[in-house]
This record gives sequence, structure tokens and C-alpha cells, in this order.
Amino acid sequence: MNTLKERILRDGHVLQGDILRVDSFLNHQIDVGLLREIGAEFSRRFFKRDITKILTVEASGIGVACITSQFFHCVPVVFAKKSQTANLSPDIYSAPVDSFTHKKTFDIRVSREYLKPSDRVLIIDDFLAVGSAVRGLISLCKAAGAQCEGVGIVIEKGWQGGGDKLRSEGYDVQSLAVIDSMNNGKIVFRDN
Amino acid sequence: MNTLKERILRDGHVLQGDILRVDSFLNHQIDVGLLREIGAEFSRRFFKRDITKILTVEASGIGVACITSQFFHCVPVVFAKKSQTANLSPDIYSAPVDSFTHKKTFDIRVSREYLKPSDRVLIIDDFLAVGSAVRGLISLCKAAGAQCEGVGIVIEKGWQGGGDKLRSEGYDVQSLAVIDSMNNGKIVFRDN
Repeated sequence: MNTLKERILRDGHVLQGDILRVDSFLNHQIDVGLLREIGAEFSRRFFKRDITKILTVEASGIGVACITSQFFHCVPVVFAKKSQTANLSPDIYSAPVDSFTHKKTFDIRVSREYLKPSDRVLIIDDFLAVGSAVRGLISLCKAAGAQCEGVGIVIEKGWQGGGDKLRSEGYDVQSLAVIDSMNNGKIVFRDN
Repeated sequence: MNTLKERILRDGHVLQGDILRVDSFLNHQIDVGLLREIGAEFSRRFFKRDITKILTVEASGIGVACITSQFFHCVPVVFAKKSQTANLSPDIYSAPVDSFTHKKTFDIRVSREYLKPSDRVLIIDDFLAVGSAVRGLISLCKAAGAQCEGVGIVIEKGWQGGGDKLRSEGYDVQSLAVIDSMNNGKIVFRDN
């Protein structure tokens, strides 16, 4: 998706430790116009899958998921939570996830009420690197007996291998920008 | 907003400890069609304020804020973060917030880059009770010299007083459903 790649080149910052900072438009300040283009692109790639639910994980995935839902007849969005709260049902599915940005492992959880065997799920997230969050979300689908119809990612760090590993296992992972290297601060996209 | 009140009566659950569970449509599973009606209503109430930015706090506010932005010419959404992450600039404004659902106090933070004195800010959140999160967000605006033009809340727990206190201080707090009591599991709305 060229608009996105151009935006990453213009406004992204490569920091030490393989970190790509895109907080001016994606995961702190959010450019909602860009999100609409992202949602439309996910729709072109996954609309035929008859998606019944979009699943993501708090926090940065929620905006992408909600805007994207509008291009799928406003199917419900479910966001997995990173902590147990007083307003969440205790009857949950959970899975462990390693966070790259938080440098720790935690459980993500979804109420059993909101993932069902009849669900055809599109998993959405802002980033994919080693793939821990996506694997956690796939685990939640499996536990519920729901079908993971696809995985839509905004930015994939291709060199970390998580996306290709999932594709080799048969998952339909579609990333709108795959970065193959960021050496010396130079961002190189796959397909370019 | 009648659609919202009817939905709260139909799908909300009053739990012990003054907890209203609305996780089937607002803050775990999200009804994006309803969110679009909510965004349109916020637009009717605040459009004349020439909003330049929507400010919320992770996680449940993000979906409401992103959908609402579409009714304000897609102004940028900024969501305050609850923890310091590797991909967040260290140059931040911060403010303490007491969480009702998490039963603890934490700092919320926003990069200085994304709140400016020229900003006319609409604060958006899913719930308002004692008003701690909104006060934290107002503090961030003040620290940045930005103008808080209004506060849009989906559900206000009126009997906890946070909304009325803010109104008495001059803030334009607009809640789409104000609940005045939930005694014995019976939800009573203000104006009804």
C-alpha cells in the first residue's frame, strides 16, 4: 500500500534496538484519514471471507480494528484485554503474549461470550514482528473453536520472521507494508 | 441519546460495587454501528467548536475517538498512554489518574509533539464517574497550553458527581447517557 509506505518513509523514525517509531500517525497520534485507507485495503483483501468478527488486542489495534469494521458491514470488534478488570466477565479464554515494546510477557484474555465456534475471524493489529500477539489471538480463536480467516497487519517487520512463519503454517497474513531491513536507519520495503 | 439508553437497558448488567457491565457493545466487544451513531451525536453537539484534535486515553476510549473523528473532518486522535513504552518519545506531559476498574493510580502520558497551544481539543471517553481520567486529560491540555473545548462521554454515572463538578467549573461536558441511580439493579437515567 503505497500511501502507507510513503508515510512511513516521511514520518517514521528508526531508533536503536530495531524500533520503528510511527507514533505521529499510527500508535499514539492517529491519522484517521489514513486509517480509513487502511480499512478499505483490508476490505479489498479479505471481504470475500465472510468475516463475522474482527479480533484485536489493546491498545493500538483498537482504532485500526474499529475503522476497518466499517468496511465489513460493521461486524463487531472484540479487543483482547491485557489485564483482568472489574468490568470483565471472569469466564474467559486467555493466552500468553511477549510484548516487544513493553519488554515483558502477559496474558491476553477474551470473554467466552464474544468468540463462538460460528465466528469467522479477521485478526487485525498495527505491528507484526516475531508474531507473539498474533499467535496469542490465534490461540484465543482455537480455544473458542472459531475460524481464523485471515490476519491483517499494518506494518510487518519482515526480517524478524514472524509473518513468514505464520504464512508457512497456512495463515493468510496480509501486511500493508513489509519492511525487510532498517539497517543504518534506512527503511527497505519488500517488493521494492 | 435514546438508541444508547435502550441498548444499556437491554444489554447492560449491573454488578455489585456500582459496576455497570456494557462489555457486549462498548468496552470489550464493540458495536461499531452504535459507535457511528455516537460519533454523529458528538458531532451535533461539538461541531461548532472548530475541534482540531480529539484526546482520549487507552484503551476503551480509542474506538469511540477514532469513529468520532470521522464526523470532525478526520482530525487527529491522540490517545494518552498508561505506561512508558520503548516506542514513545521520552519528551512527555503526564498526569496521575485513579482507575475505577483497575483499582489503582497510574500516570497517563502524551508526547509533547502531539498537543500544542494552537489545539482546540475535544476530550472523549467511554465512561465518566468521579472524573479522574477526564481531569487527567484536562491537565495534559493545560500543560500543553491547549484549549479544552469540550468533553464527550458515552456513559456518565451521574450519582458519582464527577460530571456535575466539571460542569460547575465551566467545562462543557456532554454525556450521551447519564445514569442517576442503579439501586437494586434498576438503571434510572437523568431526564427520564
